[in-house]
Amino acid sequence: MKLSDGIEQAIHSVTMLARLEADAVLSASSLAEFHGVSTSYLLKHLQALSKAGILATVPGPKGGYRLGRTPVAISLLDIVLAIEGPAPAFRCNEIRQRGPNPLPERYFKAPCGINTAMLRAEQAYRAELAGVTMADLIADLARADDGGIAARGCAFLDQHQRKPAR
Amino acid sequence: MKLSDGIEQAIHSVTMLARLEADAVLSASSLAEFHGVSTSYLLKHLQALSKAGILATVPGPKGGYRLGRTPVAISLLDIVLAIEGPAPAFRCNEIRQRGPNPLPERYFKAPCGINTAMLRAEQAYRAELAGVTMADLIADLARADDGGIAARGCAFLDQHQRKPAR
Ligand code: FES
Ligand code: FES
Repeated sequence: MKLSDGIEQAIHSVTMLARLEADAVLSASSLAEFHGVSTSYLLKHLQALSKAGILATVPGPKGGYRLGRTPVAISLLDIVLAIEGPAPAFRCNEIRQRGPNPLPERYFKAPCGINTAMLRAEQAYRAELAGVTMADLIADLARADDGGIAARGCAFLDQHQRKPAR
Repeated sequence: MKLSDGIEQAIHSVTMLARLEADAVLSASSLAEFHGVSTSYLLKHLQALSKAGILATVPGPKGGYRLGRTPVAISLLDIVLAIEGPAPAFRCNEIRQRGPNPLPERYFKAPCGINTAMLRAEQAYRAELAGVTMADLIADLARADDGGIAARGCAFLDQHQRKPAR
């Protein structure tokens, strides 16, 4: 089981976009450059975040991305589900109903207990992710920083953020 | 994020092997037949379970698989880690250290807060899986059964279990 590398890129991109001045945007290629990743790969994930309302897209040659809502309204779970899709990691193929001498359907009205137990664990995972907002994470990152990390981000933004005409 | 289909097959196989008479074994092809899955695919997972000590393998033409320890000593987490490997689903690529104008190493002694938050959620997932033993699951499955499911399993075992010479 492996999460997409896009998750790390998406979360870091959101923390970066949270530093933008009001009404400014950042292009996909700037976000990719800052994080040292492929623009085309990152673009796919930025589009997924836009579709989920986590980012807003400003089209056009001076366009780019900004947050679609405030950091306190974006949880880690929102980002993981936007990138990975809503399906649970465990997917029951109903193998209890396969094989020789099948039993009548009435035996299988309730979900398989194995499926239930696996999904219960995923609920615990999702609850933990839902409890962490991007505002929490940004505060965590700031606490671990004497100012150098923030300054590097701000210097990059000063150079690369765009103010689209409105 | 998707778990291997082998997880469902492995857990169901363990519940099946828990029904074996003492010293009896079941072949990979019988386990595959009972669950309506491919023998070669299942075999790979049975070997991973053996390597983890969850199953014991009896070699030879009358050989096969039985439990390597009692159901109360096998958790869902044991099975998931045997099949999926120990690596966490989230893998930090240290993208905070990439890109232009890199900062000195001293900024990155502590793990990234994003990595920490993602791993904390996986700990919650694993703790939940660790808290469910195969003995619990077998009891759950029995509670949801008026006897028909157990009888089908026993009839199959009567026909297919092997008693290797010792
Ligand atoms: S039938 Fe799918 S987990 Fe039991
Ligand atoms: S650098 Fe990997 S999660 Fe932050």
